[in-house]
Amino acid sequence: MESLFSDTAELRLMLAFESALATAQASMGVIPASVAETIKNCCAETDWDIESIKTQTLLAGNPAIPFVDQLRQRVRQKSPEAAQYVHQGATSQDVIDTALMSQLRQAIDQLKADLEELINQLTKLRQTYQHTPMMGRTLLQQALPITFGDKLAGWLSGLFRSTERLDRVRQECLVIQLGGPVGNGQSFGAHYRTICELMAAELDLGTTATAWHTQRDRLADLASTLGILNGSLGKLANDIILLMQTEVGEVREGAAEGKGGSSSMPHKRNPVTSTFMVAIAHRTPYLVASLLGAMNQPHERAAGAWHSEWPVIRELVKLTAANLHHANDLIRTLDVDTARMQQNLTTQP
Amino acid sequence: MESLFSDTAELRLMLAFESALATAQASMGVIPASVAETIKNCCAETDWDIESIKTQTLLAGNPAIPFVDQLRQRVRQKSPEAAQYVHQGATSQDVIDTALMSQLRQAIDQLKADLEELINQLTKLRQTYQHTPMMGRTLLQQALPITFGDKLAGWLSGLFRSTERLDRVRQECLVIQLGGPVGNGQSFGAHYRTICELMAAELDLGTTATAWHTQRDRLADLASTLGILNGSLGKLANDIILLMQTEVGEVREGAAEGKGGSSSMPHKRNPVTSTFMVAIAHRTPYLVASLLGAMNQPHERAAGAWHSEWPVIRELVKLTAANLHHANDLIRTLDVDTARMQQNLTTQP
Amino acid sequence: MESLFSDTAELRLMLAFESALATAQASMGVIPASVAETIKNCCAETDWDIESIKTQTLLAGNPAIPFVDQLRQRVRQKSPEAAQYVHQGATSQDVIDTALMSQLRQAIDQLKADLEELINQLTKLRQTYQHTPMMGRTLLQQALPITFGDKLAGWLSGLFRSTERLDRVRQECLVIQLGGPVGNGQSFGAHYRTICELMAAELDLGTTATAWHTQRDRLADLASTLGILNGSLGKLANDIILLMQTEVGEVREGAAEGKGGSSSMPHKRNPVTSTFMVAIAHRTPYLVASLLGAMNQPHERAAGAWHSEWPVIRELVKLTAANLHHANDLIRTLDVDTARMQQNLTTQP
Amino acid sequence: MESLFSDTAELRLMLAFESALATAQASMGVIPASVAETIKNCCAETDWDIESIKTQTLLAGNPAIPFVDQLRQRVRQKSPEAAQYVHQGATSQDVIDTALMSQLRQAIDQLKADLEELINQLTKLRQTYQHTPMMGRTLLQQALPITFGDKLAGWLSGLFRSTERLDRVRQECLVIQLGGPVGNGQSFGAHYRTICELMAAELDLGTTATAWHTQRDRLADLASTLGILNGSLGKLANDIILLMQTEVGEVREGAAEGKGGSSSMPHKRNPVTSTFMVAIAHRTPYLVASLLGAMNQPHERAAGAWHSEWPVIRELVKLTAANLHHANDLIRTLDVDTARMQQNLTTQP
Repeated sequence: MESLFSDTAELRLMLAFESALATAQASMGVIPASVAETIKNCCAETDWDIESIKTQTLLAGNPAIPFVDQLRQRVRQKSPEAAQYVHQGATSQDVIDTALMSQLRQAIDQLKADLEELINQLTKLRQTYQHTPMMGRTLLQQALPITFGDKLAGWLSGLFRSTERLDRVRQECLVIQLGGPVGNGQSFGAHYRTICELMAAELDLGTTATAWHTQRDRLADLASTLGILNGSLGKLANDIILLMQTEVGEVREGAAEGKGGSSSMPHKRNPVTSTFMVAIAHRTPYLVASLLGAMNQPHERAAGAWHSEWPVIRELVKLTAANLHHANDLIRTLDVDTARMQQNLTTQP
Repeated sequence: MESLFSDTAELRLMLAFESALATAQASMGVIPASVAETIKNCCAETDWDIESIKTQTLLAGNPAIPFVDQLRQRVRQKSPEAAQYVHQGATSQDVIDTALMSQLRQAIDQLKADLEELINQLTKLRQTYQHTPMMGRTLLQQALPITFGDKLAGWLSGLFRSTERLDRVRQECLVIQLGGPVGNGQSFGAHYRTICELMAAELDLGTTATAWHTQRDRLADLASTLGILNGSLGKLANDIILLMQTEVGEVREGAAEGKGGSSSMPHKRNPVTSTFMVAIAHRTPYLVASLLGAMNQPHERAAGAWHSEWPVIRELVKLTAANLHHANDLIRTLDVDTARMQQNLTTQP
Repeated sequence: MESLFSDTAELRLMLAFESALATAQASMGVIPASVAETIKNCCAETDWDIESIKTQTLLAGNPAIPFVDQLRQRVRQKSPEAAQYVHQGATSQDVIDTALMSQLRQAIDQLKADLEELINQLTKLRQTYQHTPMMGRTLLQQALPITFGDKLAGWLSGLFRSTERLDRVRQECLVIQLGGPVGNGQSFGAHYRTICELMAAELDLGTTATAWHTQRDRLADLASTLGILNGSLGKLANDIILLMQTEVGEVREGAAEGKGGSSSMPHKRNPVTSTFMVAIAHRTPYLVASLLGAMNQPHERAAGAWHSEWPVIRELVKLTAANLHHANDLIRTLDVDTARMQQNLTTQP
Repeated sequence: MESLFSDTAELRLMLAFESALATAQASMGVIPASVAETIKNCCAETDWDIESIKTQTLLAGNPAIPFVDQLRQRVRQKSPEAAQYVHQGATSQDVIDTALMSQLRQAIDQLKADLEELINQLTKLRQTYQHTPMMGRTLLQQALPITFGDKLAGWLSGLFRSTERLDRVRQECLVIQLGGPVGNGQSFGAHYRTICELMAAELDLGTTATAWHTQRDRLADLASTLGILNGSLGKLANDIILLMQTEVGEVREGAAEGKGGSSSMPHKRNPVTSTFMVAIAHRTPYLVASLLGAMNQPHERAAGAWHSEWPVIRELVKLTAANLHHANDLIRTLDVDTARMQQNLTTQP
């Protein structure tokens, strides 16, 4: 997942945008086919000066401006005529938002696979422990018996619904951005709608009836969906930490060389993976809120709110990926102490 | 909307739960039909000691405990036998969560109607001003012309998607809670699933395969959906405030006796309704995050996180209702100064 | 504390502002002494139409406008001449912010007293249990022995620092607001500085070298201070919930008729007071953030961010008061089971 | 500032902790002087396997465990006897928290210098423009004239108070962490207090009467202080964006080669630096709240909440540094258009 968020990967997605745009425009006869071919070939090249783009971003205000400059220069070397067609009709935010959406699509596909794996693991555990009695606890007080299968069913229920949510946002929220300087698509001419559709198909994204430069609800929806998934994972991890308490001892994180020790107390076995999961789940609501708060974007392009989204949505996705990765590790190696479960049911302290 | 959140309204929803539970249990022969009739009749009574419930909540930990006591006492007066069947198999959280969901259902139906009205209003405005040119602005700088219809299309696009989101959560997230003391439904016996379905139908809510006492993703989903809607409304309101600036002057909030004046500068016409909308939209991301953060609920019932939801989700719904109400007022009386729009397009400062 | 936030109490604080302003202006010869006397007398009256102020706020944009209208009308009935001097030089935000600060001063004095009581209680407990051994726990695993006195010392240390923080913000952050329509004090004439000082003295608030209509750092500082206090209280309450776990059982909330029971399991003793504390502490970070986020207030008066503060700061103060109240209750009746502490030290599960 | 947060810098601060601990313990005769010398010399070495520490952190649960292992191994190569004294009495959190505090001390000293520079710049501007009239604006409506000096005085007032806040937290909140496995200092023996004082002096930090492993109020206080500073900077930047609006045009960000252009509209001059500032200020309230929310740390060491602080406090500090850096750039090159200010005062649109 980290590689998906590398500078190189992000540059490749911006190149994919420009390539798809030129191709779509050529399909509709808006730019010459040979020009599109030249642009596409340049976009396939791999030696870009990423550092220079990063440096110039501070002056330009966004990475698309120096990126397009660099691309145009390279195209110019091949064909001065083609250079004028690079990025035609588009605005910086078209490139940046579409590249983000492409990145999110890849990320969400990965998250879905990881979540499916987790659900499979938990489903198997549930079958194994369907009838294993353990104490149910309310307000952290022993209440009445449940089975460990009941607990797993609870965890699973929230995760199942998150699967459906991921499917939904994958379908509804991942769309291209293409509106031009003020978002009304005028700069793309009469074939605007078709160009949108062609690009969306090429980039494996949805299309959109209106540009969403300052309508950020889809991004907020995606973020909320990830926030909810992390909430469910945090609950699972916290349950495990509570069940691992010395005085409860009903489950344990799997042993591994060097895992869960203490620098001062070598005899201890600490929750480690579940601790990292809780730490992530603690942070994610604030990241979601940061994106919800950033929805107030003035007029046709924001001066700050949009820019605040860039690191936050990426951090949220990376944390979600890490949380799922930890969860799969945790469940794969979880030790379940059914004897202790039985003992806690019968012993009155 | 305020009346929906009154103490009396909330009590009535708890009564509806107990009535529906007894009715469903009688249908399945779990409790005698005459008992269900007695309970149902008591639940239809209107003279309850709400203050006593509120006072005892501080000792009991939640309002359902004193509420059920009061109900059981009243049933006992009619039939000592029936009293033992009151709330049978259920736990406090079953009553409280189901009553909340009933409240949210009514609220969301109202929100949907208000949002539809707003969309209708904006759609008409859009038709009127489809071809009215105005300046598009990016990073708060004049950029290129758009039409006022374009701006309205932008506002509408986000609101349309919120309509679909409200429909979805109305369908998916509004479900009864019925799990009994530790959430596994055991206390309801062999007819548990059917009792759930009967109750859900009676209360116009969805049913649920597992209790969700500590799986709060649906509530978080509802909250996010409201948060996103408020974000779209806040953007709309802020655009209007920016367009109302003395130096821009392209729209104005409609005049009304006593509206938008200044205690020190009687000549000013301030944004008032849009200001309240921005104020609401500023608060809602934090309320959503509070609910996302509350998803970490231990074991079979939380000690704090669940309780933190009670005021927050209600505040969020009330604010959303107020925001939509303000929005309808704002749009209904909005003055559009097309001459000024034209002037701003041509005048170079 | 609730009474401090009643509509009547808030009105009285606005009246106190107008009275203090007229008095200060008369002291400096800016308005006639007899006029100040008339205004002051009117401000001492008690029969105001609060409902009308609330209704008109929605049109006026803030409560000060209808309030000043009502006051001016009343003064006019006594002396048409005096009426023109009411609120002279001031702006709505001067009244509203100063009244808020007066309210916060009273609230913080109460919070300080409650916190002092809590510290006294904990200090006594600490003396009692200074040498009572119990298990120390890290990552919720038994680690090495500590004493219950150590745990109390930990809780006390954070609360002590909160005492100092409350003292500091009481001193530094509670200041009058007086700047006039655009905040530069010009409307108060040559004696502006002295009028500020006289008013501050009269209202038991600090003065300020410049108006802070859109410089909200002091309010954010106050909010953070309350947020930190709630954080410390939440940690204390959560420790108690964890120590109350059936499997740990080292402390218990004091028994009281009807306290901590379960609607379905009468044998349980639930944490109740500590649960409410955790619920409050869960909410407060989001309220603090809402106020930090509201610091972005444009130009000389905000259109929304300022308005968003009104309910949030009050909710935060009320929650803090409730949290301290609960904490004092909790500690006053806490049962400490030293035998169980001893047993947990020695029993290996 | 970035270099202060490099892996190498963080490792050096952990080494400084172990070196200072051994030195202090030797001073008190707790460990042999020659051992301390050996440890100190090892801590001065520069070739550490940072990657291995990072990898092992995922198993160990925190970086201190593999770090101490690596240090101990290195000491063992020089003196097997000395190896057993490495990290004596300390726990992972002692190293990690103290290293964080050392890092924050260096960061805050830098922030203070940058803030002072900004204040100096603004003070000079204020002198220049003390009597330059411009329009004051409330609710984004033209109200009454102020001077540009008044606006600068407003910005300065909040920043001055932030200077005092930074001084205060520098003094009160930056303290060593030294408590041992369960925080009561027992593992350091009779000279615990003195060892604390010696270490604090050596590391240029304050000392603390009790360990604060799960009392995180000082960190929350630091975070709030940074949050407030960012709030003031965001308000300043947003004012500039609003003043830069084409229709207002009273200030402009200084021109620079490649600065503020648009990829689609070369004629535009966008706010760039102020946009980045607003983006930062938008994010910081959520980071502060994340740290306030993390105050709920159970018993003697947290399983998640503590871990969630690590990236968040660092991100907050780095963003604050960037915000101040941007602010200094912005003010240094700000173009003030006094003619346009004058014009806006007199022209009625």
